[in-house]
Order: sequence, then C-alpha cells, then structure tokens
Amino acid sequence: MQDVLNIRNYFPGLSQKVHGKPLVYFDNAATTHRLQSVIDAYSDLIISSNGNVHRSPHYLGQMATKSFENTRDKVQEFIHAKHRHEIIFTRGTTEAINLVAFSYGETFINEGDEIIVSEMEHHSNIVPWQMMCERKGAILKVIPFDDEGNLLLDEYDSLLTERTKLVAVTAISNVLGTINPIEKIIEKAHRKGAHVLIDGAQAIVHKKINIQEINCDFFAFSAHKMYGPTGVGVLYGKEDLLEQMQPYQGGGEMISEVTFKETTYGNLPTKFEAGTPDFTSVASFSKAIDFINSIDLSACISHENKLLRYAEEKLKNIEGIMFYGTSANKASLLSFTIEGMHPFDTATLIDKLGFAIRTGRMCADPIMDHYGVQSMMRISFAPYNTFEEIDQFYVALLRIREMFS
Amino acid sequence: MQDVLNIRNYFPGLSQKVHGKPLVYFDNAATTHRLQSVIDAYSDLIISSNGNVHRSPHYLGQMATKSFENTRDKVQEFIHAKHRHEIIFTRGTTEAINLVAFSYGETFINEGDEIIVSEMEHHSNIVPWQMMCERKGAILKVIPFDDEGNLLLDEYDSLLTERTKLVAVTAISNVLGTINPIEKIIEKAHRKGAHVLIDGAQAIVHKKINIQEINCDFFAFSAHKMYGPTGVGVLYGKEDLLEQMQPYQGGGEMISEVTFKETTYGNLPTKFEAGTPDFTSVASFSKAIDFINSIDLSACISHENKLLRYAEEKLKNIEGIMFYGTSANKASLLSFTIEGMHPFDTATLIDKLGFAIRTGRMCADPIMDHYGVQSMMRISFAPYNTFEEIDQFYVALLRIREMFS
Repeated sequence: MQDVLNIRNYFPGLSQKVHGKPLVYFDNAATTHRLQSVIDAYSDLIISSNGNVHRSPHYLGQMATKSFENTRDKVQEFIHAKHRHEIIFTRGTTEAINLVAFSYGETFINEGDEIIVSEMEHHSNIVPWQMMCERKGAILKVIPFDDEGNLLLDEYDSLLTERTKLVAVTAISNVLGTINPIEKIIEKAHRKGAHVLIDGAQAIVHKKINIQEINCDFFAFSAHKMYGPTGVGVLYGKEDLLEQMQPYQGGGEMISEVTFKETTYGNLPTKFEAGTPDFTSVASFSKAIDFINSIDLSACISHENKLLRYAEEKLKNIEGIMFYGTSANKASLLSFTIEGMHPFDTATLIDKLGFAIRTGRMCADPIMDHYGVQSMMRISFAPYNTFEEIDQFYVALLRIREMFS
Repeated sequence: MQDVLNIRNYFPGLSQKVHGKPLVYFDNAATTHRLQSVIDAYSDLIISSNGNVHRSPHYLGQMATKSFENTRDKVQEFIHAKHRHEIIFTRGTTEAINLVAFSYGETFINEGDEIIVSEMEHHSNIVPWQMMCERKGAILKVIPFDDEGNLLLDEYDSLLTERTKLVAVTAISNVLGTINPIEKIIEKAHRKGAHVLIDGAQAIVHKKINIQEINCDFFAFSAHKMYGPTGVGVLYGKEDLLEQMQPYQGGGEMISEVTFKETTYGNLPTKFEAGTPDFTSVASFSKAIDFINSIDLSACISHENKLLRYAEEKLKNIEGIMFYGTSANKASLLSFTIEGMHPFDTATLIDKLGFAIRTGRMCADPIMDHYGVQSMMRISFAPYNTFEEIDQFYVALLRIREMFS
C-alpha cells in the first residue's frame, strides 16, 4: 500500500516522540491510535451537543440525541445489522459480553445447561461465563486448540450436545492471531439449537463484518480498537433474543413505567442502556466509522498481512525465537518469546528505544498454560505501520539481545 | 458572588447561541457544561497518554496508567475516602448503583431480606433494587415523603427491622431539591446493622462531601454532573464490604489467575473494573476536580441558593404556578407546573428563545404519582448562572403564557 504515509497523517499520536525517540507503535491489538477527526469531533460535540440524551427537550439535548443516534445508524450500516435497535452501546467489548452473560443467563440458562468457549479466549470471554455458570449451575466446556493455534473442530463437534445453550468464541485471537472459522462454528451450533456470541474485538478492524452473513446471535467490539474513543463498545444482538432477554442494568431510560408495585421495561435498544450514556464519546465514534468506510479496507488488510509476513521472515533469524500462533489463517499480530530474553525486561528496554510492544499474559492465561510459558511479547500491526518500523524493531531487538548476553 | 462572569469564562459552551439566541442553560441537574480544561486535557491525553492502562509496559501505556490512577487519588482526596482502592470507576452513577445491587446482593442478600429506598429516588436508585429483590426473593420497602418533599423519618424508623440489609437514598432529590438528612438516616440504619448507599449524583456539586464524616457504606456520583466528561462515574465503597463482595463484571484486569478449573479475582480496586476502562475520560475528569478545589465552594453554594430564592420569588407571581419540593433544606433547583401550560409544549417553545430547561417525568415516576401530575418543568442552577438569566426566563415564560391564552 503506497498510502501508508498518507494514512499516518490522520493519526496525530503517531508522530510523537517517546523517551526522545520517534514512536514505533506496535501495540494496536491493545488499543489503536485515535483519528484527528475523532478528537476534533469530541472537542466540538462536548460543546455543541451538550445536553443529556433522550431526556432534555432543548436544543443541546436534541443535538446530543441526534449525534448519539446517528452513530447507532452508522454502526448498524457498518456491520450490516438488520435493525438499528439491535445495536446496544456499552463501555466496551467486556461489558457487552457481561451484558449477554447476565441477561441471556437470567432468561435462558438453567441448571445443567452447557456453555462452550474456546481455549484461546481473552479473559473477557471466559470469566463472565464462569461467573454465570456458577450462579446458574451450568457447565462450561472448552474447545481446545492445536500448537499452531487452530481450534480443534472435531472436538467442538463432540462438545456440542442438546444441552448446549450458547457458544462464545473469538473471531480472531488476541494472542495467536488465528482467524477462526466462525461461520462454520455458528452453523454447527445453530444446527444443535444453540446460540453463538462472537468476540469481535480484534476482528472489527481486520475483517469486513457482515453480521447477517455471519449469522451470529451476538457480536461484541470496542471503538478504541478501531481508531475511535475509549469508553465505547457495541453489542449487536438479534432482535428476538434481545427482546426476550431480561435487562442488565436498571435506571433511567430503560424503563417504560416505574411504580413500587411493578416496573415495566422500555423497548430496544434503550432497555439495555440504563443511565446517561457516554454520549460525547459515542457521537465522536462515528468519525472512526466514517474513516474506515472511506479507506480501501482490502488494501489495508493486504498491507497488514505483508507486514506480518515480513516481520516473521525478519524475526525468525533471531536465535532462540519461538512464535506462538502459526495458523495459515492469521491476522497481523505476532506473539513470541526469545530464549534468554525475559519478555518484560525486553519490552522495558525496547520501550526506551521508542518501541511500544505488549508483553505479559495478555489477558489469556489458558494460552500461556497451553504453551507452558509465563508470558510472551507481542507486536500487532495497523495499516499505518511500515516495513521500516519492522526493520528498526529487528535491529533494536538485536541490540537488546547483546545487552542480555 | 462577584465572580460569576469570571467563572463563566471557564465553560466554552455557555457563550454559544441556540436558535440564534444566547444560551441560558438551566438544565444543570441533568448534565452540567464542561470545563475548557477538561476538554483540553482530553485532547492532550488521547494523544500523549494513549496506551492501554495497567497492561502495556511501554511509555504511552505507563502515561495512561499514571493519569488514570492519579485521578483515583484525586477522587479519594476530594471525597476524603480512607483508601484509594475504595474508589471504583464506572460509567456513571447508574452503573455504580447497579454494581452494588448486583455484587452486594449476590454476597449478602437472602430470601426475605429487606432493602429500603425512598419515594423520591431517581429510577436509577429504584430499578436496580427491584431487579435484585426479584432475583433474590428480597423485599423492597419505601420511605414516603410529605407534600413539601421531606422524608418521613418516623415512617423510616418503623421500616427499619433486623431484616433490613441495606438502605439506598439520595442525598439530594433531582426533582424536589430536598437535601435529605443522610447522616441521621445512616446512623439509624447502622444501629440496626444495615448498610447504606447514598446516591450523590446531585449532591456532589452542591455539598462538600466528606465520606468518612458521613460514614455511608457506598456513595455514587457522575463526572458529567460536576463539569467533567461524560462516561465517568465513581463508586465509593468501604474497603471491608468491597473486599467481601463478589465481582460485578468478569474480564481482563479484575482477575488474579484464570484457569478453566478455577478463576481467582484480583485486589481492589481492579476487582470491580473489568475490561479496558474509559481511561482518557477518567484522566481528564481530574481537571474538573482541580477546578472545584480551586474555587470557593461555599461562595458558589451561597450564590446558587440566592439564585433559587430569587427564582422562587420571581416565578411565584405567575398565575397558576405550582412548585414541587418546598423543603426548608433545599438545593438550587425548582420543579413546577403552570396551569394551562403543558410542560413539554412550554419547554419546546422556551427552547426557541434560547432557554434550556428540563421537562417530563425526570426519571422519577413515583414523585409524579405522589403529586398526581403527568410531568413537570425543572430549572436547575450551577454557579455560572446569573440573576439576569432568571429575569429573562421570567419574561420568556410570560410571553409563552400569552401565546397559550
């Protein structure tokens, strides 16, 4: 992609220096950088659309409601959902999954029912289900993955029973990069009458998402991983399920009538949006969607894939390097360890040279346990990353390697 | 207060025009205007502190963590909490109350236990308890108020039993303006062994809050009602209770170790902060606290009270006006109806003249039912409001009155 330098101009954070060195930002799977258009929209909306949404009849309240609800329309269109009220705003992917774990759980889960997750899930797609299973007396089952990072679909087949109520898997692993065959997983679950939640936190910028084609029942993602503001997440849910589900939080906006005898709940989507939402951030999120709609996403994904291949080729020359997640179907992130180089120490030293990489257990303890490692390093790419940055990273790693030996 | 005009300069939103008219913003109880310093901090932090908090070892992640945790320190100091880990960041007051209703409920509430709220609560301090009581088989009891808007404390005494587990009341009513005697309410509850949650959403800008003096067990408030950003709330909870309570949401950061056999939870405060928080907004919230710390709060409250008395004196000349909430102990908001003038129509017409007021049921159906009205109008003041604005509002109301007749 020749437009990398052009794309970088949209992100003011990329041109800063850290520790006096030009920033090389390789931690995009944790959070991306933000668009100037998102920052500008926030500064504008916080003044020009500052009234409480849905509540205040005055001009500023109407403007707030309009920009908030416009974003819902944009999200609907972006993921090709059938209805706008299938889009629920949350704080992030984690809250979206917790919402489903609670509300779906309260409505549909009984003792002995089964939930299936995979061994490669982020903690946010494990712990909510564990908590719900404990409360409801349900059973959590786990699809294992092989050492390359591919889910074992035969094992999945044997886990699916008539007691399976819901399957929760990630579209792309935040550690292994594996792009899971979610369409196949969903189809198998549906054949058994089970519903499926897809954790789309990583996938939302690395894949074109068409919810109706994927045909999942729930899909969750975060704005801050797609160049948008922090504090905004989206839960997509199929209308009929959301309508049946009990609300998650109680409060203003989500009710129809409140008396101490009986309270009735409002319609979708407000039924699941109790309290004053982060209306300024949600409204400015629309600029991130505009941006993604304006670029050539296929070209971006292709560029990211080239970065991934290039980084793999380069880094494999480092003695003692071990990659985790080598699936043929993989998004643009690379997790690794290097013999003799502690991940945290390495990340700390390389930070001083201007490189932002992730290290640790990456909110995925079961993956660490699978490979028997305490922690890993991870570099994760966005379309604004360059081959030169990878070259510089390689040289920096070699420098640190020398310091260790 | 001679400094009103000076204070107005800190809020860029106040000098805008709506419908071609200078804005008169009287909807502060719904949401206040934002400080320029908060807006500037947001634009800065979203670039200079943009890494995922607590997770990323690199410079930007460290800066994000630092500014996020600094805000926690500031909040602790601001409300005089004993420990910094007693401060939990949420999306707002509503989420804070829902957190307690769930986590306290799961940990301490059994069938037949009793929860007490008051008749003047906002829906956000009613519905979460109704949902919890239904799930747990607990009983919700209600402290009534008299027509002036004072809680009937004798009735409260008779509601308190050895089955009472928790009392949830607002420090200041969002409709009636009543400043409730929370210290007395808390003391009585504690004597019976019950815990107390205080909804501080309105009180946080109209009262000096010293949590240790108040001695409540939980206290909830929102940044957007104190000149800060949207999407940020605070739950204060006493250490020993928070430590005993089950977590609310599961995910990254709130765990100690995750395995499919057993997951253990982290320490306070992260145990209650699953997932990536809205770290940019939380960090910029600190500027709102700095501002409140920098002004003479007593002078502000005194100015607000004068505005209230002035507005009452002025508006009572309007034929057919009825005030709701006439307690001697009252914060600076005024709810009313005017015979022959439908609240919604009035608010819509007066909006065209530049006045932002609230109308409707104000998320407090039981108060509407108490007075047998469908809706009210409300004007609510901040220290940046002026006597001239009240004069203009009075004239505008008279103009609209003519249109109605």
